[in-house]
Amino acid sequence: MPIPVIQYEHGRLRVLDQTRLPREAVQAELADLDAVVRAIKTLMVRGAPLIGVTAAFGLCVALAGASGAEEARSRAVDALARLRASRPTAVNLFWALERMERRLGELPAKGWREALEAEARAIHEETLRQDKALVEHGVGLLTAGARVITHCNTGPLATGGAGTALGVLISAHRTLGGLHVFVDETRPRWQGAHLTTWELATQGVPYTLMVDSAAAPLMRLKKIHSVWVGADRIAANGDTANKIGTYALALAARHHEVPFYVVAPTSTVDLALDSGEEIPIEERDAAEVAAPRGLMVAPEGAPVWNPAFDVTPADLIAAIITERGVLRGPRFDLRQALG
Amino acid sequence: MPIPVIQYEHGRLRVLDQTRLPREAVQAELADLDAVVRAIKTLMVRGAPLIGVTAAFGLCVALAGASGAEEARSRAVDALARLRASRPTAVNLFWALERMERRLGELPAKGWREALEAEARAIHEETLRQDKALVEHGVGLLTAGARVITHCNTGPLATGGAGTALGVLISAHRTLGGLHVFVDETRPRWQGAHLTTWELATQGVPYTLMVDSAAAPLMRLKKIHSVWVGADRIAANGDTANKIGTYALALAARHHEVPFYVVAPTSTVDLALDSGEEIPIEERDAAEVAAPRGLMVAPEGAPVWNPAFDVTPADLIAAIITERGVLRGPRFDLRQALG
Repeated sequence: MPIPVIQYEHGRLRVLDQTRLPREAVQAELADLDAVVRAIKTLMVRGAPLIGVTAAFGLCVALAGASGAEEARSRAVDALARLRASRPTAVNLFWALERMERRLGELPAKGWREALEAEARAIHEETLRQDKALVEHGVGLLTAGARVITHCNTGPLATGGAGTALGVLISAHRTLGGLHVFVDETRPRWQGAHLTTWELATQGVPYTLMVDSAAAPLMRLKKIHSVWVGADRIAANGDTANKIGTYALALAARHHEVPFYVVAPTSTVDLALDSGEEIPIEERDAAEVAAPRGLMVAPEGAPVWNPAFDVTPADLIAAIITERGVLRGPRFDLRQALG
Repeated sequence: MPIPVIQYEHGRLRVLDQTRLPREAVQAELADLDAVVRAIKTLMVRGAPLIGVTAAFGLCVALAGASGAEEARSRAVDALARLRASRPTAVNLFWALERMERRLGELPAKGWREALEAEARAIHEETLRQDKALVEHGVGLLTAGARVITHCNTGPLATGGAGTALGVLISAHRTLGGLHVFVDETRPRWQGAHLTTWELATQGVPYTLMVDSAAAPLMRLKKIHSVWVGADRIAANGDTANKIGTYALALAARHHEVPFYVVAPTSTVDLALDSGEEIPIEERDAAEVAAPRGLMVAPEGAPVWNPAFDVTPADLIAAIITERGVLRGPRFDLRQALG
């Protein structure tokens, strides 16, 4: 990929502005805490793992001007609160900020800035390593020439590394050959249409774009090998919060006996939650549905329900693939498997 | 409704241009066969029953200049062929044109034009009567305060009369009170967002708009009384072709044990077809998905699968409501029930 999804060099944080894809691939600099929070809220950066990495580097940016470790710690209270309030569902955000907060508590007086940056870099590198490992585990579930369906975007753009579910598909095409990926457009924000198509085209993987509701008749009409999605938060019992549309896709997969796979690093698993009912679901602005990118599709002031995510119960999931391996359903005990 | 959905007066055919709703409610005159065919193809008029009525009046417009019954009959060969080729799935089109063709075969030499117009008017009036009757049958399946889901647009805009599924909901709100209608936006053409919201607002029925894939989590999170859709063609065994997204909605309804109702006049039933597998499904232009209303959401040239309809198997349908009454599933023998 010519432009890195996220880049932190000499104290400057730059990200690929994903709201401008596929029209143009340009970087934006996130020069202060406001810019970082705005980038996360507006989906300039998105994808659960990448949100975590961005928040970690974002904290470094926010504290860069502090005169010492003490001031950095006191400034961090507000910065952490604002970053944590930026988006509620993806748990990687909280996971990354918790690690950063722990490191803050033990900063050396000399070289405190470098120590904090080192922790953010460690989080990024861990994401890269996790991606690599989970992609390898996922490829083992595919066969040459498989016709698969994916939802939203879970490629390199979603993690800053190899990606999760889409990373598996890209790697499988390279190593096994002949994959065909059917891509849900993913209303309301079109991450499938904007980003997944762009990544598949860039990687030379054959694909077909369709509206979200076409996935069910596709499974009925044509042989589909498997369905692949990422996750924003996975509860201890395997219930998975992911982009709105994932649950409908899982129901259709179940009806047609198509295996439904969830791919995510363990940093997406929230062992504190017993089940998906406890996962907070973000509700976003009505305009995303009623006036997407300024195009008025509904009457002015139309009442809208716009949840960004839904919860797929564990019993619809054939396997959860993390960097540690493949956990097979339909029952999961992630506290035991990963705790 | 201030502006009629379809109007034929003094040989002039005018329709409400539905591609401009909800932004503006304006009529367009369909002055010749080209205009009629274009209006059907571009969805300026849409909805299975209204397509039939439009084609019937459209044939009158196409033959208006003929010097006599003989010339009208010879001109009709081409006009009928072009109208029949305008859209493949909604059977009401073929049903209406068959009636017109039969009438053409027996036109009186004197007053042939009036005789042909009378047949088109009879088709329109029959649609109005059917709507009225099926709406009454449908209301009997609802209760005061019901929370329901609907897909696409099946109101007065879809028939030129009281509507089918949405007609039931509007009437139920008026007579029983307190309905709340959850409206699928209906990608790719947004008939739910554009038209159903507009009709519900006009009729004072409370509604909430959502993306198509939100219907499944809505059923999981909140008590939904029933799901209501129209039809473009129903096979003899009850399999129903309707707007893309209907099948996914029916699968979600089944999983959540929510009754799934199909509402259509008997002119939508095609007794010549044993099952839904025989229903021809229109595939429309890639741009509807990739560049809706000129908004580029996918990379230039992205491969797209864009079926306009899908088929819901009869066993997912709790009842089919026609002007003749309520037929309960899960097994239907429409040849016996309606033949």
